[in-house]
Amino acid sequence: MKNFTSPGLLLDMAAFHALFDAVAAVGCTPLGGLNRVAASHEDGQSRDLVCAWLAQRHFKISVDRVGNIYALLTLADPTAPWVLTGSHLDSQPRGGRFDGAYGVIGACIVADAMRTCAQQQFSHNLGVVIWTNEEGARFSPSMLGSGVFAGRYTSDFALSRQDVHGVTLAQALGQIGYLGDSEAPAVPAAYVELHIEQGGLLEISNAGIGVVEGNWGAVKYAVTLRGTAAHTGPTPMEQRRDALLAAAKLVVACRAISDATFGKLLTSVGRMDIEPNSSNVIAGSVTVYADLRTTDNALLIESSLEFERAASTIAADAKIEVDLQQVVNRPAGIFDTGLCTLVEQVATAKGYRPMRLSTIAGHDAIALCPLCPTAMIFVPSKDGISHNEAEFTSSTDLEAGLDVLGGTLHELLRKPLTP
Amino acid sequence: MKNFTSPGLLLDMAAFHALFDAVAAVGCTPLGGLNRVAASHEDGQSRDLVCAWLAQRHFKISVDRVGNIYALLTLADPTAPWVLTGSHLDSQPRGGRFDGAYGVIGACIVADAMRTCAQQQFSHNLGVVIWTNEEGARFSPSMLGSGVFAGRYTSDFALSRQDVHGVTLAQALGQIGYLGDSEAPAVPAAYVELHIEQGGLLEISNAGIGVVEGNWGAVKYAVTLRGTAAHTGPTPMEQRRDALLAAAKLVVACRAISDATFGKLLTSVGRMDIEPNSSNVIAGSVTVYADLRTTDNALLIESSLEFERAASTIAADAKIEVDLQQVVNRPAGIFDTGLCTLVEQVATAKGYRPMRLSTIAGHDAIALCPLCPTAMIFVPSKDGISHNEAEFTSSTDLEAGLDVLGGTLHELLRKPLTP
Repeated sequence: MKNFTSPGLLLDMAAFHALFDAVAAVGCTPLGGLNRVAASHEDGQSRDLVCAWLAQRHFKISVDRVGNIYALLTLADPTAPWVLTGSHLDSQPRGGRFDGAYGVIGACIVADAMRTCAQQQFSHNLGVVIWTNEEGARFSPSMLGSGVFAGRYTSDFALSRQDVHGVTLAQALGQIGYLGDSEAPAVPAAYVELHIEQGGLLEISNAGIGVVEGNWGAVKYAVTLRGTAAHTGPTPMEQRRDALLAAAKLVVACRAISDATFGKLLTSVGRMDIEPNSSNVIAGSVTVYADLRTTDNALLIESSLEFERAASTIAADAKIEVDLQQVVNRPAGIFDTGLCTLVEQVATAKGYRPMRLSTIAGHDAIALCPLCPTAMIFVPSKDGISHNEAEFTSSTDLEAGLDVLGGTLHELLRKPLTP
Repeated sequence: MKNFTSPGLLLDMAAFHALFDAVAAVGCTPLGGLNRVAASHEDGQSRDLVCAWLAQRHFKISVDRVGNIYALLTLADPTAPWVLTGSHLDSQPRGGRFDGAYGVIGACIVADAMRTCAQQQFSHNLGVVIWTNEEGARFSPSMLGSGVFAGRYTSDFALSRQDVHGVTLAQALGQIGYLGDSEAPAVPAAYVELHIEQGGLLEISNAGIGVVEGNWGAVKYAVTLRGTAAHTGPTPMEQRRDALLAAAKLVVACRAISDATFGKLLTSVGRMDIEPNSSNVIAGSVTVYADLRTTDNALLIESSLEFERAASTIAADAKIEVDLQQVVNRPAGIFDTGLCTLVEQVATAKGYRPMRLSTIAGHDAIALCPLCPTAMIFVPSKDGISHNEAEFTSSTDLEAGLDVLGGTLHELLRKPLTP
């Protein structure tokens, strides 16, 4: 039987914690979380920090048109295929310090370990990637950088996305010096992403490593309801065209669609943009951001239609105009089964308890999935908490994840090339 | 019978339109409305403009600690009591150009006409007032400047109010140069405020002048619902403590309280502050701004309790903490009946069709009501639209209002002093 313990690969855990803590300090909040939304000043600072670290270690860094950063390491013939690993540095406005950054810094440490085990024979080259705007908190949709890389969106579409102040991604990237002009590298032979689980399954199951088999389907909407702004005082109730009341009904209806499935379908509204959002003015316009997620693609389609009907009915009843845009439509899918098995074998050989699961959250790996064999490695999130300043993963679990990423890449990079 | 046609009083309507248009240009929006929230740069510019106009005409201008501006005109013995007229220059974020500004500029023109009819014998002096933060859009509560003048709030309370960015009223007034240090003038003998109706009753009734008999009662709340921020993806439905879902239910419940009264009670939620308001994060905290209004004080108390119970029940069901603050509690009240009759007589004598009504919206006049005899004069709002960029009143109606304000003040300023 093959040995998956990656002999000769030495991961510098002290360097990992030092770089992780340094990056977590950029945009940190008083409660120990992060405010480092995409292409913000803080995002730029954290990119600078990681790029400086990689440049010192002789990685060849390039930035593509949408700000994705590639740090390439030639381990084999320069024309040999390459394996890609990484994640994102942007956060939610009050997010945690592990989401994304863990996968980027883990990739840096593992890649550096490959560089220094010179006695090895590698068949592939290696790249570390930092994707732009995974979170979708500042610019919608999420997974924008990886989506461009995978050909789902054009660069022009991505660069023209605007934040709530009307700043485009192009402008924001320009301001932080990451509006690049390099061509994105060729399609990799494989993509592996290390990430925190952001759910509670691993913890509950006492498993140390999550082997991601696939992703839940997700449909996301931006529903703009347009009524008439009016004084909350003298406007008689029957004359009102109250966009916020209609939005509230849509939030309640969206939850009811999940309740009817007994939680098999997850539904959420996390954001509403209210105009003018003044206490004495009946809202003239509200945009509701809703998402629906499930493993069952038929249920996803059916529930999406139900949501669209609810929006139309509520708007019609309230004499309000409705503009419904489906911003994401991502069917449930499966990751590469061979890579899944490999991650599981490596984790087992190294003495961790792996567990197979699906990711409910979106990740850059999902964007890469149609492009090349893709795997994700999860580590436990304390109490399943994420997108919250209280997000936490223990050092033991973080180091275990690095170890499994290292072992997995060690296998992939030495895998014989198929003609 | 007395003649109420105010002979000798010449109102310069050309000057009115010129000053009105100049002030409406400060903070104007592309759709012809205004974005001139309290103590903003634009509010400061409009104050500068009106103060320069008044100073040129020899009004004596002072600014009190909370930024209320008083422009005094000595028409009689300097120690004689004074009559006060005016309104506010601040607007909603996307408000109309008539709300408030009309009453300020109308007061300027009428006061200037009093100054120039030198042949008259006046028993009272006259003041034009510009109140700070009537709208409550930037700083809560509304009617803050007039509330301090009337002794309802302390200056320190008012100055410590913060906008959503944490800027205090004191800081904002300091920035625009209107953090004054003058003592507010003595209690006036009467206060008269000219305003647009902001409702559709005058238009429907084909009446040109509204004689405001009293005000509706209003109770306003800021209800903060605190759940737990979490990823909209992997967080199982039963574990969620979704503050936005609870807020949505409260908005729907608030409307139901009105529906049960068949519109006798008006209820509104115009504003919600959502944290972090990101599409991929279940909201950790939402503050809902609700108001309840009616002419029936018993119904107002009963409905307020019902609203408070609804907030508690919704929060408890969602395992969410609730912090409910009553920010305004203003019982329904009546304006001075003698002044009402006077306004009606003047309007009739001048050939307008007056109509008695109550104001549903809050006004600085309501704050002044417990302090001195107070009257309000309304002119029609096209289609009843207000707090909207489409707010409109015809020049004919605007001039009629000025004419009635002029006649009313002309009577009051010449009224024999009672010992």
